[in-house]
Parts: sequence; structure tokens; C-alpha cells
Amino acid sequence: MEQHPRQMDGLFQALADPTRRAVLRRLGQGPASISELAKPFDMALPSFMKHIHLLEESGWIQTRKEGRVRTCAIEKKPFAVVQAWLSEQRDLWEGRTDRLEQFVTRTHGKGEPR
Amino acid sequence: MEQHPRQMDGLFQALADPTRRAVLRRLGQGPASISELAKPFDMALPSFMKHIHLLEESGWIQTRKEGRVRTCAIEKKPFAVVQAWLSEQRDLWEGRTDRLEQFVTRTHGKGEPR
Repeated sequence: MEQHPRQMDGLFQALADPTRRAVLRRLGQGPASISELAKPFDMALPSFMKHIHLLEESGWIQTRKEGRVRTCAIEKKPFAVVQAWLSEQRDLWEGRTDRLEQFVTRTHGKGEPR
Repeated sequence: MEQHPRQMDGLFQALADPTRRAVLRRLGQGPASISELAKPFDMALPSFMKHIHLLEESGWIQTRKEGRVRTCAIEKKPFAVVQAWLSEQRDLWEGRTDRLEQFVTRTHGKGEPR
């Protein structure tokens, strides 16, 4: 069972949008202000801010306001959470493949002379 | 830029739900029928089928009907797509870390005597 299913829901939900993925890609190169982040998008600022809030609420980014400028920075922990989920899936398949191999080897060993 | 942003949206959207993630985890261990998959969930079949359809439409699973039984099997390609996205993010940070290290080394070399 998952430990924090709602957190996982939020992390994946945040990734289900090209603007939010592009913001994360940009922030992977270093922190940036909201206006700098918004520049490449043909989008009204309130709409863009919704994406920023969703990224912050889900845990993908942190924002900090200094004077009039709000700066955003990426959080690395969510990437580790998603990576762990993918790795868990892979372990399941590999366990399954191992079991299949054992079965094939056993069957082969019994049924056919060398 | 991403090659297939809508496909990516669908892949992540499908993961933003605990039932769908649990179905993928189960299918990671091998194919299963709809009724077998639905058993652990306290959910009406039509609601469960919506999750199955979303997983199939987004590309995470394939289903096949034989007689009255529909069997589901996991698709591995989406995992590779998500893995590639994560790795791309990691490469961005690492490039950034490398550049920062070069900068620190250079600054250190110029500014301070050993």
C-alpha cells in the first residue's frame, strides 16, 4: 500500500499539464521570478498563477517573496518520490521475470535431457 | 520542447488516482481479468470500468476480450516515457551543478591564494 496516496495524486496531477512541466524544466536550470517564468507563455497572469499555485501546493516548487518579486525554486524530493514509484513497478516486473525464468529452467531441467 | 505533450498529459493524469496506480501495480505481476482486478476495490463496476478505460486510453494498459472475459495487461512503454522525463530533469540539475562547480573552482582559483 502507498503511504501518502493523496500526496501522490497531487504530484502526478501537477505533471498532467504542459505549462507546469515546462515551468519545472525551466526551474531545473535554477530559480526564477514569476515574471521571468511567465514570459514564454501566451497566457494571462492569473491563469499562469494558478499553475504556479498548483505546483507549490503539490510540493514540486517553493516560492519566496522579497519586496515585489516572488521567486520560485524547484524541490527535488517529489522527483525521488516519482522515481521510487517507477522503480517499485520495475521490481515487480523483474520479480515476475525471475519467477518465470526459474519456472522455465525448472521445467527444462526436468523435462529434457541435457 | 516535448514531442507529444497531450500523450504526456494523459500518462500523468492516469497516475493521479490511487485506484489506477493500484491496478498498474497488480498488472505489474501479470495479466488479470476485470473481475479479478476489481475485487479489492469497494466500487461499483461502472466506476471501476471508467478507471480501466482511462488506463487503456492513456496507453498504460491493453485489454483483450475472449468470450465473456476481458483481460488486462500492462504496457511498459509509458514507464520508459515517464522515466525519460525524470532523467531529463536530472540532467538539467546536474548540468547546473557542474556549471556551479566550475564557477566556484574558477572563482576560488583566481581570488584566493592556496
